[in-house]
Amino acid sequence: MTHSASIKTLTTPALLLSVERVQRNVTRLRSHLSSLGVPLRPHLKTAKCTEVARMAMTTAAGPATVSTLREAEQFAAAGVRDLLYAVGIGPDKLPRVLALRKAGVDLSIILDSLDQAHAVVAACQESKTCIPVLIEIDADDQRAGVRADDPRVIEIGRVLLQGGAELRGVMTHSGGSYSQAGADALCTAAEAERSAAVSAAAALRRADLPCAVVSVGSTPAAHFARDLSGVTEVRAGVFVFFDLVMAGLGVCEIDDIAMSVLATVIGHQSAKDWILIDAGWTALSQDRGTAHQAVDQGYGLVCDLAGAPYPDLIVTRVNQEHGIVSLRPGSKARLPDIPIGSRLRILPNHACATATQFDRYHVLNETDEVTDIWQRFSGW
Amino acid sequence: MTHSASIKTLTTPALLLSVERVQRNVTRLRSHLSSLGVPLRPHLKTAKCTEVARMAMTTAAGPATVSTLREAEQFAAAGVRDLLYAVGIGPDKLPRVLALRKAGVDLSIILDSLDQAHAVVAACQESKTCIPVLIEIDADDQRAGVRADDPRVIEIGRVLLQGGAELRGVMTHSGGSYSQAGADALCTAAEAERSAAVSAAAALRRADLPCAVVSVGSTPAAHFARDLSGVTEVRAGVFVFFDLVMAGLGVCEIDDIAMSVLATVIGHQSAKDWILIDAGWTALSQDRGTAHQAVDQGYGLVCDLAGAPYPDLIVTRVNQEHGIVSLRPGSKARLPDIPIGSRLRILPNHACATATQFDRYHVLNETDEVTDIWQRFSGW
Repeated sequence: MTHSASIKTLTTPALLLSVERVQRNVTRLRSHLSSLGVPLRPHLKTAKCTEVARMAMTTAAGPATVSTLREAEQFAAAGVRDLLYAVGIGPDKLPRVLALRKAGVDLSIILDSLDQAHAVVAACQESKTCIPVLIEIDADDQRAGVRADDPRVIEIGRVLLQGGAELRGVMTHSGGSYSQAGADALCTAAEAERSAAVSAAAALRRADLPCAVVSVGSTPAAHFARDLSGVTEVRAGVFVFFDLVMAGLGVCEIDDIAMSVLATVIGHQSAKDWILIDAGWTALSQDRGTAHQAVDQGYGLVCDLAGAPYPDLIVTRVNQEHGIVSLRPGSKARLPDIPIGSRLRILPNHACATATQFDRYHVLNETDEVTDIWQRFSGW
Repeated sequence: MTHSASIKTLTTPALLLSVERVQRNVTRLRSHLSSLGVPLRPHLKTAKCTEVARMAMTTAAGPATVSTLREAEQFAAAGVRDLLYAVGIGPDKLPRVLALRKAGVDLSIILDSLDQAHAVVAACQESKTCIPVLIEIDADDQRAGVRADDPRVIEIGRVLLQGGAELRGVMTHSGGSYSQAGADALCTAAEAERSAAVSAAAALRRADLPCAVVSVGSTPAAHFARDLSGVTEVRAGVFVFFDLVMAGLGVCEIDDIAMSVLATVIGHQSAKDWILIDAGWTALSQDRGTAHQAVDQGYGLVCDLAGAPYPDLIVTRVNQEHGIVSLRPGSKARLPDIPIGSRLRILPNHACATATQFDRYHVLNETDEVTDIWQRFSGW
């Protein structure tokens, strides 16, 4: 089916998704992990869309990872039955966890404190059910988790097990891998992530506590892991789409980026060498993830309607509904002459942040025809 | 009617709106402009909500300003009849402009180039209707517009008038006022804005071209203007809500900020003096508008559930669904002991950006009871 819309006529700004690139990106990570003998539990927080989720998951029932209970509920309604909610559980969210489990979804949760463990145990006892829990392990001081050698790993495990929860295992997320460019640094980050999770698992087992699941995850580390001994699953999300941050790290090529924002030229400020477009931060987001990389892409890299990047042309400033396009500072390139009404495609710094600004994907086939509109959801 | 939800039980993150503060903020700007003899055309791009729009507008039919045609269509459906679409027109958006005008909405548009003027004239001729246009004047080199003394102001005016469009006047937006802290600097920015618009209007009139409307606008300049001679209307949007950026400029007090994000504590990293909350950038946005102000508020200022700020406690980092709360660098304050499951309220850097992340306002009365849920819309 060819949709009646075309990238030449769609209302701008609009979010475009190349289904061929998504397929290619998914195949690449799956075959890498397959060669390491570890299954993928894709993170659906970037997609927030049933159709994309089905492309990323190995089966329509999962497994998958989510970052909100809204995602869990939406994907459960679409038939996913094996979900990990990978943000530390707030006690007031437990009733929704129990409701999903009662509906037949094997939803597991994560935590990193005794307080949370006690709250989960209380919920298990009150509901006479058993909630599966992974203990979050901190591999790199970036966000949450308990260090693998912290005695609290064992204490939390005991509270869970003795209180009637299911101690299913451990998980970690290598947030630090997003600031490690190049293959060697990313290999090291992947090994640090693996080693933290595996050593926490070993500590639990030494204490006669069960640890069936050893879950690691982050797109850069997943692609550069050379050995995943002891790991039972890998989580990754942005790999489905890729973005300029991932390209800057060397995880993908610009040509792998499956998502772009379609925009229209609405003005020029010739004295300043600015081209104004109708995509501001409501469309592109304010993510500046490339700001500290070797190549700062501003708020996005500017391509023509066919998707070819203009040399050194980036979105340098954004207001709510305006983007200012200009040459990268210091560039020797010539500002292209792009008349008012012309359409451009902007590649995102961070696919998760840009996608969040839209409620649908306009799906493109290999020849950039719009073949479908896929709804996205948001909220909590 | 008291809504069954309470800020103690709402799913977090959630967007809270104090209706009393909105009323106070609207009254303040209206009476200031009233003393200067100029009517307000509120900008509804922050609100994106019919109920808030009705509080901000002087009548249910307008006038008002919008930043997208989606806003124009939504507010038109709610009975607003006088709208200015204040982003430079893209030629492909003209059919929707014509449709709204045909439906009885007095929608005017803006432009700053001969190319756009020719496109508008063509649309007027083809549709046998007359689209009202304001020429955008550049007061401070921040974004779009023609300088007031640029001969193109007259050329554009002539093309419009001779081609059968309605040359309704001129407009400018003092983007530069957002980086001018303190009363004196903001008075100067307001006068620069006024002077640019008024002198462009004079140039048009000297050339025997009509200029009924002289429209200026930006929240900081609107509050600090001392003289608006020659101006026929003022636009402002964020004043309805206020935010930390406006407080940093001295336009409002922290206590005037009507919007906050309700969040729950989901973890601690005691060794790093971090408190983790379930509000990341999907809730708070990535706006860093206070980064270059005297007081950097990180991604938001942290308050207790009653709305009282903790000394020096800010959101220092955000991931997609995590916020890291810690003391401002260099602070002598003590990190408060806030247990897991506690609720906090985060004041936003930039109300427009934070509100965009939500599809509804939870409306609070003076005693912080949730009295209503007001829907927001988004998209283009």
